[in-house]
Amino acid sequence: MKELLDRTECYLRDQLLPFWQARIIEPKFGGFQTNYDRDGRRTAVTHKTLLCQGRSIFTLSHAIRMGYDRPGSREMIRQGIDFLFGHFRDPEFDGYYWIVTEDGRPEDDSKVIYGHSFLIYALAEHAIVTGDGRSRQEACRLFDLLAARAADFQFGGFFEHFDRRFNLVSVRPDGVFDKSLDVHMHLMEAFTTLFELTRWPRHEQALRQVAELIFTRMLDPEFGVGTSMYGPDWAPIANIQLGTVWGSDRFDPAGKPPEITSYGHNIELAWLYLHAMDVLGVPREQVIDRVRPIFEHTVRDGIDREFGGVYVEGHRKSGPIEMNKEFWQQAEALVGLLDAHLLLGERKYLDAFRNVHDFVFTRMINWEQGEWFPLLSREGKVLWDYMGHDWKICYHTIRSMIQTVCRLRQIVERDTMAGRQHGPPTPTPPSGGREG
Amino acid sequence: MKELLDRTECYLRDQLLPFWQARIIEPKFGGFQTNYDRDGRRTAVTHKTLLCQGRSIFTLSHAIRMGYDRPGSREMIRQGIDFLFGHFRDPEFDGYYWIVTEDGRPEDDSKVIYGHSFLIYALAEHAIVTGDGRSRQEACRLFDLLAARAADFQFGGFFEHFDRRFNLVSVRPDGVFDKSLDVHMHLMEAFTTLFELTRWPRHEQALRQVAELIFTRMLDPEFGVGTSMYGPDWAPIANIQLGTVWGSDRFDPAGKPPEITSYGHNIELAWLYLHAMDVLGVPREQVIDRVRPIFEHTVRDGIDREFGGVYVEGHRKSGPIEMNKEFWQQAEALVGLLDAHLLLGERKYLDAFRNVHDFVFTRMINWEQGEWFPLLSREGKVLWDYMGHDWKICYHTIRSMIQTVCRLRQIVERDTMAGRQHGPPTPTPPSGGREG
Repeated sequence: MKELLDRTECYLRDQLLPFWQARIIEPKFGGFQTNYDRDGRRTAVTHKTLLCQGRSIFTLSHAIRMGYDRPGSREMIRQGIDFLFGHFRDPEFDGYYWIVTEDGRPEDDSKVIYGHSFLIYALAEHAIVTGDGRSRQEACRLFDLLAARAADFQFGGFFEHFDRRFNLVSVRPDGVFDKSLDVHMHLMEAFTTLFELTRWPRHEQALRQVAELIFTRMLDPEFGVGTSMYGPDWAPIANIQLGTVWGSDRFDPAGKPPEITSYGHNIELAWLYLHAMDVLGVPREQVIDRVRPIFEHTVRDGIDREFGGVYVEGHRKSGPIEMNKEFWQQAEALVGLLDAHLLLGERKYLDAFRNVHDFVFTRMINWEQGEWFPLLSREGKVLWDYMGHDWKICYHTIRSMIQTVCRLRQIVERDTMAGRQHGPPTPTPPSGGREG
Repeated sequence: MKELLDRTECYLRDQLLPFWQARIIEPKFGGFQTNYDRDGRRTAVTHKTLLCQGRSIFTLSHAIRMGYDRPGSREMIRQGIDFLFGHFRDPEFDGYYWIVTEDGRPEDDSKVIYGHSFLIYALAEHAIVTGDGRSRQEACRLFDLLAARAADFQFGGFFEHFDRRFNLVSVRPDGVFDKSLDVHMHLMEAFTTLFELTRWPRHEQALRQVAELIFTRMLDPEFGVGTSMYGPDWAPIANIQLGTVWGSDRFDPAGKPPEITSYGHNIELAWLYLHAMDVLGVPREQVIDRVRPIFEHTVRDGIDREFGGVYVEGHRKSGPIEMNKEFWQQAEALVGLLDAHLLLGERKYLDAFRNVHDFVFTRMINWEQGEWFPLLSREGKVLWDYMGHDWKICYHTIRSMIQTVCRLRQIVERDTMAGRQHGPPTPTPPSGGREG
């Protein structure tokens, strides 16, 4: 494990972070730009997305917080926040535009809750790291704005898509005003960091409410894993290509039935939920029943034992359907599988972690650049090869490596302590036993 | 009917409105004061409640809107809003205090959603009547504030009791964070007028959401009438004396089981809901199934055919329990029963209206002063005799008389038209026939 830890941390410090630190600022007009090709060169895309700005602010702030500060990184963040406030914020109808041109004129003036959720996450993280009052105030104000514009007073949760004036719109071909696990999971993530910053009971309450909402409304009662999309009343509906996108999911025109579950979202949800419980002061042991089904399902159905890595998604009951390997599922699985091992003590989670780590380090990372390919075939063949674009930002890869290092460090320390207390380690039983 | 109309309008114009116009301003420090004894003299109570300020602003504005303007009434309202903004609004934690001293220092700094709901109602009504930008802006801002501080993101609806810092508190002896039909009905009322003012889709959406919430969560599925109190998840709970009060309800220490329904709240809900539908542009005929059970239940169980008037409350199934006659139930029943008659055309609602109108005009009104006694025995004996206090303001009586006059006028016009079209009116069938 010590070798894995060192390898991961060296990669993070010497390759992944430097790749982005050299590229993430857009030098001409300011803000952040993550459109880079396989060779690390800027692509022809020049516009800037809200998601890119928010996730970059978060990631750079998070790196500083976790000990990966570099000269100039605070200034990098500050210029990004200046660009954000100066060009994305709508002076007339409030909220933030979805896409602006490189020089900061609105190109898509929609108000998308997903993007605003990442702003709360980013500004709260920045305020925690730097004590910046402007970031703190805007994170709190955005929380209020989401409640005022997007909360559903009838069924709970939040609507997700609005026009510039914050009029609710549907971006589905069937006209449904959908609610999604994706957005509510990221709201939970954002509210976690906001509450960590403010320790204000209202933010604590909101975090608990959204977490409860997810676990009572958005998970399959039989398998305990997520469904993607819901109508306003939380009835599961097909997951379908939306008019406003923030990822590169691949859809048939008919969409995907509610029986399809995303291995990446499931495992990401599990570890973000455990982190939320940490911040709320709830012992992880108290919520084992909520996360165990997710961890078990991921390991049972989501891990490719032949070629390595985590599949994209599958049928909740009968297993994988899309067997390609996408970068972000691998990133989130690394963190979640270590959490599963640390909480449940079972060897199978560590084995699954080694599997995914090995796949990432042998197949997914483009070692010539230091970032990850976005999409490989099941066997590991590169299907898409850019290093970053509007929706592939540095957030998943850097956060995953930082959080993986933290957990590996915990395991190494635990094993060292166990070694000290009990003499040389005894062989671990094949499965079910507590590792260490 | 013409005689009833004239009698009601003369009373409103010559007695009820003048009683309050002469008394409602507190001359020493400003704002409104409604503590008056049986003889119309100020009582020893000097503090000022948020509810009194909000309801007074609404009532005076509503009277102007409906054609009962008097010289100086706009200035009366303006000084009240100045006092409200200057002394009730919390400059540090936002929102408005619940009670202040006569000179405007906080006495109870709780933040109570019921009071804030009436502020939205009042300021929106004032903005509609006068075009005042300050009132409009504050009504909109308070809508946002309620969402940000009080919305329940898990189960929908709003929590109702907060301390000065907007931390959620329970004011029930059993510690439950309750939700109530009372507060949500008045939020529907407030959002109706707010949407009437702004015509903004978000306010329309909020109005629809709260109205749906009430009719899907807060009414008995068998009888279609209201339950008072709910836990956060909408499970009905006992209606119990709260630590923060805004009325003079009478409780046993054990409280009242969920089977108890309030005849006054039911009929008030029905007509406020129909009014909300009018503002939303939904034809009343489309929602008959929602209001008919309430109207039928009120007439079946709530009307005292022996002594006249509407009972306070009863068992949903087996009929009245508290048979006293309280002022506000009579006030709301007058309006609701005329709506029932106009919508359903049945004679029994007009008979019930005549019953209650007669009871009010012979028993409830203190003719020496022009206001109503707060509480009579079933037989009509005066039990409480003050003309106003912190929670008996002029809102129920004046609004009821204004709205009754409007509806009586409609009926008189309808009857006149019918007479013109068909010659002399034919005798009405005993029941079930359309009056006219």
